[in-house]
Amino acid sequence: MTQIKNIGVFTSGGDAPGMNAAIRSVVRSATYYGFDVTGIRRGYEGMINGELFAMDRKSVSNIIQRGGTILKTARSEQFKTPEGRKLAYEQLKKHNVDALVAIGGDGTFTGARIFGQEYDIPVVGLPGTIDNDLSGTDFTIGYDTAINTVIDAVDKIRDTAESHDRVFIIEVMGRDSGLIALRTGIASGAEAIIIPETKTDLNNLCERLEHSRKDKLSKIVIVAEGEDAGGAFEIGRHVKERFPHYDTRVSILGHIQRGGRPSCMDRVLASRVGVAAVEALRDGHRNEMVGVIHNEISYTPFEHACKHTVEINPAFLKIVEILAI
Amino acid sequence: MTQIKNIGVFTSGGDAPGMNAAIRSVVRSATYYGFDVTGIRRGYEGMINGELFAMDRKSVSNIIQRGGTILKTARSEQFKTPEGRKLAYEQLKKHNVDALVAIGGDGTFTGARIFGQEYDIPVVGLPGTIDNDLSGTDFTIGYDTAINTVIDAVDKIRDTAESHDRVFIIEVMGRDSGLIALRTGIASGAEAIIIPETKTDLNNLCERLEHSRKDKLSKIVIVAEGEDAGGAFEIGRHVKERFPHYDTRVSILGHIQRGGRPSCMDRVLASRVGVAAVEALRDGHRNEMVGVIHNEISYTPFEHACKHTVEINPAFLKIVEILAI
Amino acid sequence: MTQIKNIGVFTSGGDAPGMNAAIRSVVRSATYYGFDVTGIRRGYEGMINGELFAMDRKSVSNIIQRGGTILKTARSEQFKTPEGRKLAYEQLKKHNVDALVAIGGDGTFTGARIFGQEYDIPVVGLPGTIDNDLSGTDFTIGYDTAINTVIDAVDKIRDTAESHDRVFIIEVMGRDSGLIALRTGIASGAEAIIIPETKTDLNNLCERLEHSRKDKLSKIVIVAEGEDAGGAFEIGRHVKERFPHYDTRVSILGHIQRGGRPSCMDRVLASRVGVAAVEALRDGHRNEMVGVIHNEISYTPFEHACKHTVEINPAFLKIVEILAI
Amino acid sequence: MTQIKNIGVFTSGGDAPGMNAAIRSVVRSATYYGFDVTGIRRGYEGMINGELFAMDRKSVSNIIQRGGTILKTARSEQFKTPEGRKLAYEQLKKHNVDALVAIGGDGTFTGARIFGQEYDIPVVGLPGTIDNDLSGTDFTIGYDTAINTVIDAVDKIRDTAESHDRVFIIEVMGRDSGLIALRTGIASGAEAIIIPETKTDLNNLCERLEHSRKDKLSKIVIVAEGEDAGGAFEIGRHVKERFPHYDTRVSILGHIQRGGRPSCMDRVLASRVGVAAVEALRDGHRNEMVGVIHNEISYTPFEHACKHTVEINPAFLKIVEILAI
Repeated sequence: MTQIKNIGVFTSGGDAPGMNAAIRSVVRSATYYGFDVTGIRRGYEGMINGELFAMDRKSVSNIIQRGGTILKTARSEQFKTPEGRKLAYEQLKKHNVDALVAIGGDGTFTGARIFGQEYDIPVVGLPGTIDNDLSGTDFTIGYDTAINTVIDAVDKIRDTAESHDRVFIIEVMGRDSGLIALRTGIASGAEAIIIPETKTDLNNLCERLEHSRKDKLSKIVIVAEGEDAGGAFEIGRHVKERFPHYDTRVSILGHIQRGGRPSCMDRVLASRVGVAAVEALRDGHRNEMVGVIHNEISYTPFEHACKHTVEINPAFLKIVEILAI
Repeated sequence: MTQIKNIGVFTSGGDAPGMNAAIRSVVRSATYYGFDVTGIRRGYEGMINGELFAMDRKSVSNIIQRGGTILKTARSEQFKTPEGRKLAYEQLKKHNVDALVAIGGDGTFTGARIFGQEYDIPVVGLPGTIDNDLSGTDFTIGYDTAINTVIDAVDKIRDTAESHDRVFIIEVMGRDSGLIALRTGIASGAEAIIIPETKTDLNNLCERLEHSRKDKLSKIVIVAEGEDAGGAFEIGRHVKERFPHYDTRVSILGHIQRGGRPSCMDRVLASRVGVAAVEALRDGHRNEMVGVIHNEISYTPFEHACKHTVEINPAFLKIVEILAI
Repeated sequence: MTQIKNIGVFTSGGDAPGMNAAIRSVVRSATYYGFDVTGIRRGYEGMINGELFAMDRKSVSNIIQRGGTILKTARSEQFKTPEGRKLAYEQLKKHNVDALVAIGGDGTFTGARIFGQEYDIPVVGLPGTIDNDLSGTDFTIGYDTAINTVIDAVDKIRDTAESHDRVFIIEVMGRDSGLIALRTGIASGAEAIIIPETKTDLNNLCERLEHSRKDKLSKIVIVAEGEDAGGAFEIGRHVKERFPHYDTRVSILGHIQRGGRPSCMDRVLASRVGVAAVEALRDGHRNEMVGVIHNEISYTPFEHACKHTVEINPAFLKIVEILAI
Repeated sequence: MTQIKNIGVFTSGGDAPGMNAAIRSVVRSATYYGFDVTGIRRGYEGMINGELFAMDRKSVSNIIQRGGTILKTARSEQFKTPEGRKLAYEQLKKHNVDALVAIGGDGTFTGARIFGQEYDIPVVGLPGTIDNDLSGTDFTIGYDTAINTVIDAVDKIRDTAESHDRVFIIEVMGRDSGLIALRTGIASGAEAIIIPETKTDLNNLCERLEHSRKDKLSKIVIVAEGEDAGGAFEIGRHVKERFPHYDTRVSILGHIQRGGRPSCMDRVLASRVGVAAVEALRDGHRNEMVGVIHNEISYTPFEHACKHTVEINPAFLKIVEILAI
């Protein structure tokens, strides 16, 4: 094991609140342990294009509370090719970077895993995605903030729903995972939630809308974008057809879900795994994602972290049904 | 002038944050001045259907901070007919209501004006709409909250826009008025704003996007829904076609703009005009909207309040251009 | 085991955000499972005074998002006496209440434990306190909201601290527990945290302030109210004496920490344990607190939940030190 | 009139939300009109110490939404002396600064007025203070944000007050002005407000607490720090003595009131007056504060802006009384 001297850090894939807190933690703890730090802009794309620069503890002052990522992020087609990865490696060598902390999600770690097999650069990953769809950690950085953003928005829509006796079909993020929909559905008092992990049954939905609280005309349905019935607009169309007397509206929450000041828990999680990532590199770890399971730091090989094996707790679906009584 | 004994209060049209603060103020000040108060649910529709009930000062406890309207709101086709208005009048008589405070916007006051001509019920209006598109008041109840909600959302989207170097076309409310777009465009540092009051010039928009800060790829355009180029999706399509190398996204903020806890200014405005409306009825006013102009209470006949003569200050458009440098 | 027919629910001790979500969950799930529900106002005090009333699923509409507790809360000296508990029991019998769900903290469960030994009324507890100082659950209802409220306030104070190069000593809640200080200290990028679980060493604090980032004059220290050096004012006095050239200020966050709309996680936690409490009573549990450990429902006898054995993870203290570099 | 080439900009006195939006507006509009721009850190103190640096449009990217001031602020004893002002003038000359935009309040403009009499440097001021206590503008930058911060905090305290039936005496900022207390008192549904502009009558306060809503034990009193009865703690002591059966608590909101993301209105105001200040310098104005009166840009000589002649609208005090019924 060669001695690491210079740790590169970057964010990749969709941005998530808390990524800045994670960058800060990596830079500060690397400095604390005597490493040099190199920031890499725009993820793998910037690595290939040589967007590398020295960072120190002051580079990350006053960012713990900011959304987005000061290192910017991008998706890179080039990095999927051996030629692209070779260029990236050459840039790292040129800047004397001999280890990496990759902050991102599934795609980020897939890239990191392949890169780590081809080149002798230890890479450690931090789970940064609002979707919470990674194995190897109870929560991903950004998830807690995103679900708070969603319920804040749904609380506002509920004001209007109650005032007008409206049914609202609200689409939240989650192309492959219903985890945002699941917790926000419970927390916003939704009548029903519709997620990719279960087959969407529009008849069942309509029955629930019909039978739940007949004396109440204002109802909310939370839909994860990845479900298989065509999304919130299609579901809204179906509900309108079946219940023409309802005043049914559709709302797509969209990109607001990725932004905003990170919550306390996201900042703490990001700070913890940032420190642990640097300590892991120091201790010889590589090709692993650092997460938190049962409140303890955990290390998961990239190939296991990437697989979307996160399961939906059926008790949560039952809670939605019980509380919609 | 008959002595008023019982004041009815209702909300009508689209809901707006601060309507509850207005209801509270009307109920409390009517009680203070010795009137009875009758709440009417669901606007004109509920008036026709007899949804009237006695209110006292406790009925409005702990609502000043809540979005929506505890009296609910609706649009009424029936009230547009003489028969509907007759039914409404009979219900008011039945419940001994001999004066009304109507909280709403343009449509609400049009109804009130006609009703006030046909029947001897003095009606005073309060400007409750997020659009700020009424003459006779500097601001409408709900506008200040709505523009804060918009910039909160745009701040979040900007986190993502900056992180990904994206162009965002963001649609805000305003079918006939660009006032929400205007102030939120300035406050969110938008590159350009597009409003119903001016002809939309997509070539000009594209030129501005091209020439403003060439070194900056993240740009925001705020679009009022009522503009004449087809809305944010159509504008987004045009921008994508012209600048295929931009990562252009569209976001429709939608119904979140109507909800939420009212801002301090909206609560103060609602409280002031609520008191003034009751005092106006006591003093013999009728068929007038009570607003605030230059920080003083003002009274505007419904026919003048209704006309959409609110003009856009050209200096505001110039500011957007200057600050987008 | 007698068949339970009517479940009483109450909140007791300090209020916490999410208590309403818990009440809603208990009422709705009790209704779902066929029980009658009795609300008890003002905790044990109201139980003694007969403030009991029937609740149904509609009683808890539109409260999931509200801070405080619709059942109100109080501390009761009377309930600490056998005579008080006897009166309470007689009121429960009078209203046919044959089981209880108690939402509160340490003092609440101590009362419940004694009451459950004296009278044949099964009691199940839900952890409702912002302090997170109960064994038997990873998190208490209200803690997540409170720490978000704290960092929101500290973010605001930091704006001023940075603008003026000031040192701020900020006191947060936590008479016996440093858990609020610990996570908010990490999340707000504090230079140091001071908690009841460790001996306060003012010399060490001053050394850290002196040596950390000498080029930076704006620094934040988070102090839990229960620490042993006399609180934030005393610590501020000491820092001023030692560093007269610092512009040192003290801020006591105070009661804002108990209020506010509950976070998504607090609403989900409250909803989960609310359902589980009713199911536990149905299944014959008694004298237990229902919590969530490692994302699974857990049951802890009151005598174990009450003991303040919550330990501070030393890794968290180390993180504060590392990131203050 | 010499041609201006280089405009210096600084913030001074207490920081206020929206100062960054004002700085951005000055820098961008100066650039737009062809001026060079020099940033001055730490107000007059930094001017004396030579903390001047060139700014361009990019220096102010992504700050419109941030609280505090990127130029930092300070109070300067040195600038009150002729020697200090001479040093400041020499630094301006050295950096070729030939005009100034001063963002601050009363003290800032007093300094600017004297400086402008002694040296041939045109100075224009922008009203930046949360207190709203300047003549020559309807609102100061920061006031709208501060009152929203206050009601957000009071809403949280109210959750606790209602849950525990408590009386809360809440102190807000305003050493010489009751304007923060006045609007937040109305907006938070306070029972009474106590301000410096009127003599504090504790007997009257106690009578109002006694007679207002006897059936309601939870009451809120908003106190401006500058009132003459000794502040919130002293008032709280008096209330406790008079009503020992009340559960009376005191809360000092403190420094959170200065920070936070500026509201939409504060950003718009800051953007407007920033542009107008640069245009004013271009057009030969000097020794004037640029404000907004009745929605139009206004220019007020520093000597008139400084005097605290802002009067309290008695109608506002009446509203508090009426709505506390």
